[in-house]
Amino acid sequence: MDNPHLWLRLDLANGHHIGPGKIALLEAIRAKGSITAAARHLGMSYRRAWLMVENMNDALREPAVTSAQGGAYGGGTVLTDVGEQIIQIYHSVEGLTLTSAHQELRAIARLGRDRS
Amino acid sequence: MDNPHLWLRLDLANGHHIGPGKIALLEAIRAKGSITAAARHLGMSYRRAWLMVENMNDALREPAVTSAQGGAYGGGTVLTDVGEQIIQIYHSVEGLTLTSAHQELRAIARLGRDRS
Repeated sequence: MDNPHLWLRLDLANGHHIGPGKIALLEAIRAKGSITAAARHLGMSYRRAWLMVENMNDALREPAVTSAQGGAYGGGTVLTDVGEQIIQIYHSVEGLTLTSAHQELRAIARLGRDRS
Repeated sequence: MDNPHLWLRLDLANGHHIGPGKIALLEAIRAKGSITAAARHLGMSYRRAWLMVENMNDALREPAVTSAQGGAYGGGTVLTDVGEQIIQIYHSVEGLTLTSAHQELRAIARLGRDRS
């Protein structure tokens, strides 16, 4: 059997949420250096990726993503320290859950009917 | 600040998922004794609730929900042992995550802009 997986959505104190979609987008922006390239990498429209970034930045005290002005390629997009923190904390919570609830996650996974 | 909340979706070994919507539906069926009353309680259509139950039962080795045939009120719907187990395990995972990742959940919650 595969190891258990889980899907976490974490709440900000103001009622906004950070889930796996936003984490994947932050990681793609970090890897690809622009919202355009990140959106293409994830198979989503630029507009949808841009709205997710705007929504996330509006919900935070400090933005997670910002313009890389003056870069060698005339701009692009980079993560801020807050953006890096969000990714790191999210994966910490995942790891802590997988470790602390390992038995429970395996127990629920085993209730599933086998693929046939 | 409120205590952190989180939203978990757990995977069955066959790729199906159990998330907070299905847990809320199981708990409402347990409390109300029928899919009709549970759907009304949750503000969803009977059809949507029924499809969620069918989808869940199909994904499991043994059903989570079954008919209470021959009951004093001519039927209704009850949870099986598997349905009870799913609710209990889900809340265990929630509790273990909230405990083991308490610092991280508070840290991410605090990154949110204050409500204004």
